[in-house]
Amino acid sequence: MPPLVESLARLIAELSSLPGIGERSAERIAFHLLRVTPDEARRLSEAILDVKARIRSCGTCSNLTEADPCRICADGSRDRSTICVVEQPNDLWAIEKAGSYRGLYHVLLGRIAPLEDIHPEDLTIARLVERVRAGGVTEVIFATNPTLEGDGTVLHIQRLLAASGVRLTRLARGIPAGSTLQYASPPSLADALDGRRPLG
Amino acid sequence: MPPLVESLARLIAELSSLPGIGERSAERIAFHLLRVTPDEARRLSEAILDVKARIRSCGTCSNLTEADPCRICADGSRDRSTICVVEQPNDLWAIEKAGSYRGLYHVLLGRIAPLEDIHPEDLTIARLVERVRAGGVTEVIFATNPTLEGDGTVLHIQRLLAASGVRLTRLARGIPAGSTLQYASPPSLADALDGRRPLG
Repeated sequence: MPPLVESLARLIAELSSLPGIGERSAERIAFHLLRVTPDEARRLSEAILDVKARIRSCGTCSNLTEADPCRICADGSRDRSTICVVEQPNDLWAIEKAGSYRGLYHVLLGRIAPLEDIHPEDLTIARLVERVRAGGVTEVIFATNPTLEGDGTVLHIQRLLAASGVRLTRLARGIPAGSTLQYASPPSLADALDGRRPLG
Repeated sequence: MPPLVESLARLIAELSSLPGIGERSAERIAFHLLRVTPDEARRLSEAILDVKARIRSCGTCSNLTEADPCRICADGSRDRSTICVVEQPNDLWAIEKAGSYRGLYHVLLGRIAPLEDIHPEDLTIARLVERVRAGGVTEVIFATNPTLEGDGTVLHIQRLLAASGVRLTRLARGIPAGSTLQYASPPSLADALDGRRPLG
């Protein structure tokens, strides 16, 4: 297709580069943006620049934040004796949405993956060890992804914290609530059997 | 969920308002934008403002354009004896992508829809009639959407142009009724153009 309108073609190209947006969706969104008021378009445009300009890593837990420390680290009502370790900020968000956790977090900003050249020193592991050594922490909950690399990362940190005397736990694995046994993956069924709990 | 980070929550809200983007996709895109370079984010942000600032309607055919007349109207190699009438600029784009049409266009900027309070005078019908009356046009091809309203719009314009002596045709119904031009495949659009039939 000849780029009938350059600026529109460029917007479609930019939108197509976003995750989960194909060319057709990009076109649809671009034509939508052409129809909205200049104000609405400006709000989206500014929101994009804003996140880049304002958001940084919390100096303590590496959560995304506009202020340092982040709201969770700064929140006096949270339980400071527990640290939940996640790979990425969106994992933290997912746990916050679940709404039952009241402790602090530590975001690793990845997982150990030698094949991708991601090593322990590329993550925030050293800072986690410091936080535990500083005292006051009684439990570290590992909530990395249930993958080989997630598990390997836990194993690595577990060794570093073994001497700390702090309780180390990981999220329960099993069949997801609301799913059906029939469609559960073999590994998650194996985990569910393995971690079976006594009734009442 | 508490808005952990205001600017991020705002970006997610803005993205969620785009067509075809749910809250999960919006989150995914927002976290993606957090990870890209500031330059990449700025390119998307500017592309959004650019289309709003630069794009207007062609004074002749109402196609989206940065210059007036638009590239198609200004293109000396196009067949000026044929005008293809579409509802929206993206319909024009769809036909251009099919690649077999070499004439000019006329974008109605909608279709007659009394229930939505859209009447003939809200569209660019008067300008189309003027273009035909100005002479040099031997055929008007109607490429409105194959819907009741699209057909009704054709009927209305057909009456206005009946006395002009110009050949009036519509796209062959190679395109499935009830769908929209915007999402038709290029080959089926090319077929539809090729098999256009004389009106009544």
